[in-house]
Amino acid sequence: MSVVLGIDIGGSGTRAVLAERTGTDATALTLGGVLTGDPIGVTATGSTVPSAALALVRRVAEAWPDRIRELTGIGVGATGVATLVERPADLVDALAAEVAALTDRRVGVAVAIDAVTAHLGALDGEPGAIVALGTGAIAFGTDGADIWRRVDGWGHLLGDRGGGAWIGMHGLTAAMRAHDGVDSTGEVLLDAARARFGEPLAWPAQLYTRDDRAGVLASFAADVARAAEAGDACGTEIMTHAGREAARSAVAALDPRLPAVVAATGGVFRPGETLALAFERALTELRPGVEVRAPAGDPLLGAAILAERVAAGRIATHAPYVWVGGTPGA
Amino acid sequence: MSVVLGIDIGGSGTRAVLAERTGTDATALTLGGVLTGDPIGVTATGSTVPSAALALVRRVAEAWPDRIRELTGIGVGATGVATLVERPADLVDALAAEVAALTDRRVGVAVAIDAVTAHLGALDGEPGAIVALGTGAIAFGTDGADIWRRVDGWGHLLGDRGGGAWIGMHGLTAAMRAHDGVDSTGEVLLDAARARFGEPLAWPAQLYTRDDRAGVLASFAADVARAAEAGDACGTEIMTHAGREAARSAVAALDPRLPAVVAATGGVFRPGETLALAFERALTELRPGVEVRAPAGDPLLGAAILAERVAAGRIATHAPYVWVGGTPGA
Repeated sequence: MSVVLGIDIGGSGTRAVLAERTGTDATALTLGGVLTGDPIGVTATGSTVPSAALALVRRVAEAWPDRIRELTGIGVGATGVATLVERPADLVDALAAEVAALTDRRVGVAVAIDAVTAHLGALDGEPGAIVALGTGAIAFGTDGADIWRRVDGWGHLLGDRGGGAWIGMHGLTAAMRAHDGVDSTGEVLLDAARARFGEPLAWPAQLYTRDDRAGVLASFAADVARAAEAGDACGTEIMTHAGREAARSAVAALDPRLPAVVAATGGVFRPGETLALAFERALTELRPGVEVRAPAGDPLLGAAILAERVAAGRIATHAPYVWVGGTPGA
Repeated sequence: MSVVLGIDIGGSGTRAVLAERTGTDATALTLGGVLTGDPIGVTATGSTVPSAALALVRRVAEAWPDRIRELTGIGVGATGVATLVERPADLVDALAAEVAALTDRRVGVAVAIDAVTAHLGALDGEPGAIVALGTGAIAFGTDGADIWRRVDGWGHLLGDRGGGAWIGMHGLTAAMRAHDGVDSTGEVLLDAARARFGEPLAWPAQLYTRDDRAGVLASFAADVARAAEAGDACGTEIMTHAGREAARSAVAALDPRLPAVVAATGGVFRPGETLALAFERALTELRPGVEVRAPAGDPLLGAAILAERVAAGRIATHAPYVWVGGTPGA
């Protein structure tokens, strides 16, 4: 049986897993132990995704020295890889070289934007569209072959509509409006933000000096969600708005040639809560008859599926979504 | 006649001026030549305001070696000084020491948040409230003695409602919605953003890798304003919204004990245009009978007035708005 390595790199943390196919059944991909790493950030020289990915490969090799020698493929899903990593193909080459140095093996490597691995995990490799709400927000529609449609994922200053940082920023903005005496509807969120960040005068220094501003903003999304579930009007309005934005992105990603299947995924999407209910309501309005599917798995499973595909030579480079290299199908 | 030094430090540039009182009349403060410096930024170690202020003092001493020896006071207005400079009092001491080293003179130094110098310049030292719309947005109400009321100025992730970065971010978000096929109302702004930043996939790298993200965002405010003046519905909506936000901040800063006088200032506020008209309309609605006054001068004049006040011993420390030190009233 062949072993593959899946790596998931996001704004709130990085994870790696070794996976093994235990049968011919489509879903018989068994994940082993998961290694976790620190969140990545963006500095003046770009994203720290490449160094994080290479570090994880080395740690996996240290943790499972025997299994790494059976490796046939690596799949990486990473946030910002299309926009903030100068040459994603270089990362593919660096990962292949790292494995060769560690094990003497020639393996296939695929690096994709996180939306692709979220899609593979959530729809178990089947065609359709997904929306992933983590620190950021991105929607993606694909059949894995000819159709590749990305919507959003532009970061907290340009979009990421409905994601954790977007929710947190809307929540903190509402809290500051209450603090400023401009609009009292954010009072509950102001209390929550004080509990998390201290007095408002201290908030800017906790945000603007950090490389992981999006992660700091997203940390407040949990408070906004909690306020919404407790019935706070301002929190409810923000989470409802987030759900509607996510639905609009999902519909825009659902190319008409794809089956009308949508899955929502990511830590911010919690079934049965305000955001998820608003999402499903808006989705049905915007695209009547759409099938809303519960995600089969997470982006880490998706990264393992991507690794399998590259190991089998069943995926090609489709920039700026997925880059394939090393020795695919070896 | 005594010479004072005014310094204005903002997100889009820094300026310094030597000023001289030419008579006893309240407005007879004559400004000399203006030195300009680069925009400041925020790094992992905090704001670059202190180094920028010290560099300007040295450059003024080089440019006008004779006049600097008549110096009696320094007034500095700086963005983020209350929130991103760890100890503003240290900057006061450093400036006094720098002047002593350069000239052997003991002078008074006052460092204030930019809203205070904007207030002093716009209302020529009289009580009332101002709103300053530059890269950021802040409103401030004061009588220079007992009443100090700050509203907003929290930066582009927490507020700065109606300022240049806020407008630019709303404009780019609308442009991305159009690019994503989610909402076509931003098409005109999408064209404008393409002309400025290239293809959307290249925008994140131009923003997230920069220390002066707010300045990059604010650079797009000019395009949004232009779209509004040309009748574009999306641009008009954003500029109208900005004007209303600025009015709400100004009213919140107008402590009931202050005269109902408001001035709007900053490069984003252009009389007769969409934002200014919406501002005046909203202000009159929110606070009937308010006097809207055209600004007497800019924050650089305000910094010179602040320098005069500290030279005359007529201003005391009121943290977190103004910090006084050196040898005031010498």
